[in-house]
Amino acid sequence: MRAVETAWRSAPGGITAPRGLRAASAIAGLRATVAAPDLALLTVADGSASAAGVFTTNRFRAAPVLLSELALASSGGRARAIIANAGCANAGTGPAGMADAQRVAARVADAVGCAPTEVLSASTGLIGSRLDVEAIEEVLPALQPRASRAAGREAARAILTTDTRTKEASVVANLDGRTITVGGMAKGSGMIHPQMATMLAFVATDATIEPPLLAALLRDAVRDSFNQVTVDGDTSTNDSVFLLATGAAGGPSLAGSGDEEGAVAAIAAGVSLVCRDLARQIAADGEGATRLIEVNVTGALTVDEARLAARSVAGSNLVKAAVHGADPNWGRIAAAAGRSGATLDPGRLVIWIGDQRVFAGEPCPFDEKLASRHLRRKRVTLRIDLGIGPGAGEAWGCDLSADYVAINSEYAT
Amino acid sequence: MRAVETAWRSAPGGITAPRGLRAASAIAGLRATVAAPDLALLTVADGSASAAGVFTTNRFRAAPVLLSELALASSGGRARAIIANAGCANAGTGPAGMADAQRVAARVADAVGCAPTEVLSASTGLIGSRLDVEAIEEVLPALQPRASRAAGREAARAILTTDTRTKEASVVANLDGRTITVGGMAKGSGMIHPQMATMLAFVATDATIEPPLLAALLRDAVRDSFNQVTVDGDTSTNDSVFLLATGAAGGPSLAGSGDEEGAVAAIAAGVSLVCRDLARQIAADGEGATRLIEVNVTGALTVDEARLAARSVAGSNLVKAAVHGADPNWGRIAAAAGRSGATLDPGRLVIWIGDQRVFAGEPCPFDEKLASRHLRRKRVTLRIDLGIGPGAGEAWGCDLSADYVAINSEYAT
Repeated sequence: MRAVETAWRSAPGGITAPRGLRAASAIAGLRATVAAPDLALLTVADGSASAAGVFTTNRFRAAPVLLSELALASSGGRARAIIANAGCANAGTGPAGMADAQRVAARVADAVGCAPTEVLSASTGLIGSRLDVEAIEEVLPALQPRASRAAGREAARAILTTDTRTKEASVVANLDGRTITVGGMAKGSGMIHPQMATMLAFVATDATIEPPLLAALLRDAVRDSFNQVTVDGDTSTNDSVFLLATGAAGGPSLAGSGDEEGAVAAIAAGVSLVCRDLARQIAADGEGATRLIEVNVTGALTVDEARLAARSVAGSNLVKAAVHGADPNWGRIAAAAGRSGATLDPGRLVIWIGDQRVFAGEPCPFDEKLASRHLRRKRVTLRIDLGIGPGAGEAWGCDLSADYVAINSEYAT
Repeated sequence: MRAVETAWRSAPGGITAPRGLRAASAIAGLRATVAAPDLALLTVADGSASAAGVFTTNRFRAAPVLLSELALASSGGRARAIIANAGCANAGTGPAGMADAQRVAARVADAVGCAPTEVLSASTGLIGSRLDVEAIEEVLPALQPRASRAAGREAARAILTTDTRTKEASVVANLDGRTITVGGMAKGSGMIHPQMATMLAFVATDATIEPPLLAALLRDAVRDSFNQVTVDGDTSTNDSVFLLATGAAGGPSLAGSGDEEGAVAAIAAGVSLVCRDLARQIAADGEGATRLIEVNVTGALTVDEARLAARSVAGSNLVKAAVHGADPNWGRIAAAAGRSGATLDPGRLVIWIGDQRVFAGEPCPFDEKLASRHLRRKRVTLRIDLGIGPGAGEAWGCDLSADYVAINSEYAT
């Protein structure tokens, strides 16, 4: 994988970087507090794209999540447009909320000139309040999707909630004589109004890929990236990641047959790079966060166990608070790895904080000042070797600050 | 179960309430900051007691946990004494730490006049530092275990760390013409020094019970009580719950055969009551906590799914922060139940905050002021009916305050 990853180089822009993808945004007035862009429309320039989605595992699922799943199943994994809004999650709204989401999708289909099943939907914001469909209908006709970098950036801004930064990523590679681009945008786990954390991500490529293969590529990429991000352990009702393949770069359509192995692996690496980049940006911009925590686990029994251990450490309130306090507290790291469910033998466990080895089967002497200094960096690295097997995995989180508590509790007092 | 529970009434005292149990405590000087009692010794008055233990599922396990498991296996579930210390977890200390724990147990065995395998061990405190065995040896000979209520209370104080209150509970019942008492003490998930949360609990009864049955009783009671407490989701390296049955109340020894069903159910109810009482006290005294959160789930597919959903809600950072802010935010409750893994249909879900029904398949009108006022109480009740099956379960947690972050991060800055 390392070899094919090196074929990719990072590129400017986000969701509109791949050819064949256009974006537009508008102020529909859905945000309770400020009049800022809150509606983003992504369209496929020519015909439809292969499309795939991965959605929240939460069983309390929002209407747009249910509708997008239905659309992907009905269309056989094809899409012409994605409509996304901030300000309202359209979750917990029952059959009325589903009707609202369907009405918006139908209007988008009219505007774009496609079937409603070729429109995917995403929402983020307040749970339990109804979507202002009329406000959306009012601004829809004026939306003029463009392929420009600025249009992509504006769309990335329209989906933000309490995020403090837009999140875009893009990579480009020359594969079999064709320039292939993968680009995307995301919003992080920030509260909207003060109700709900939602992660949304939209990724596209101009490669030509059949829907079943595209779905498999997305599943794999999400497992390594977005599923390894933890801000507060709360899975939202609206989490959605979409992947479109416009085919605008040309070439035969990849379906995953034997002789395409190299090409598929290359595309997979590009999709994964963009997803991981966006995932890292989400963790770094967690609510109240001042530092990104990267946890690297090696020596696990399996890759799944490595991911499990990494996620447990990145998600531990005690580890997060220790990082916030710049305290090189390896006991909390060991305990968090130990409770993850991953196979672990304390006698074989090795832990590093930055480049300081702090535990190796037993406490080992280390420079506490250097370790503490590392923990004050914007990007903190915790490395754990379980010494048992070949499994490796990563996870990303952020420190736990008093601001997190303030953002999520003080509004009502 | 309700019928047998009513046979029990709460009684004064804690671990020394059952006949045949004695306690002593001392200042060994293990605490880094203050000279307060830090060593507790529990002894069985006459002969040995049946003994059982349930230990942390963390794979990074402390020496006293490993040693206690070994002792219970070697002795066939019999014990004469339990030695517990605060100030040092004796975790992550490798073979040297194990030798330390063994040496302490051997000294206790000498003092009590029993085999080392009849001594159980528990520690809580700093991870990674060695136990000061000599300091313990120095004070051991002076310990004079007594059966008094005061001796029990002093022992309950000796095991505390950042707990703000001692935690004791006791119930008594007349069963088959005999007065049976169950009593216990616990320490909660407070940081010791600022390293590790540990839950320790010690429960005893004067009923006469064979070790295998006692082990089963304890497993069941722990599942309903301590395992449903969540302060910060971090399982410690040292969590231990012990149950002793001294037999001092007399009567034939219960082994769980068919005709003993009623008696076993009655004892089980008493043990469960004490464990749940201690569990609630631990949640209410969580670090930085200002409120106890009780979550009651009904209508789940199974009892296990009910417990899962209750624990997920009680442990959600977003729910905890909302309670802290007295915000009747049912969306966070619904989302936390939805991500628990329990079977859930939003259309059948009903949620109450105190006595206010806030969601019933869709948002329903409620008095926000009354709901908010309920959330300001010391004891907050969140009720969830999944409307699917017969499963019911409870969990206990606490609100998330800026103090939690301060306690766990600011020490190093």
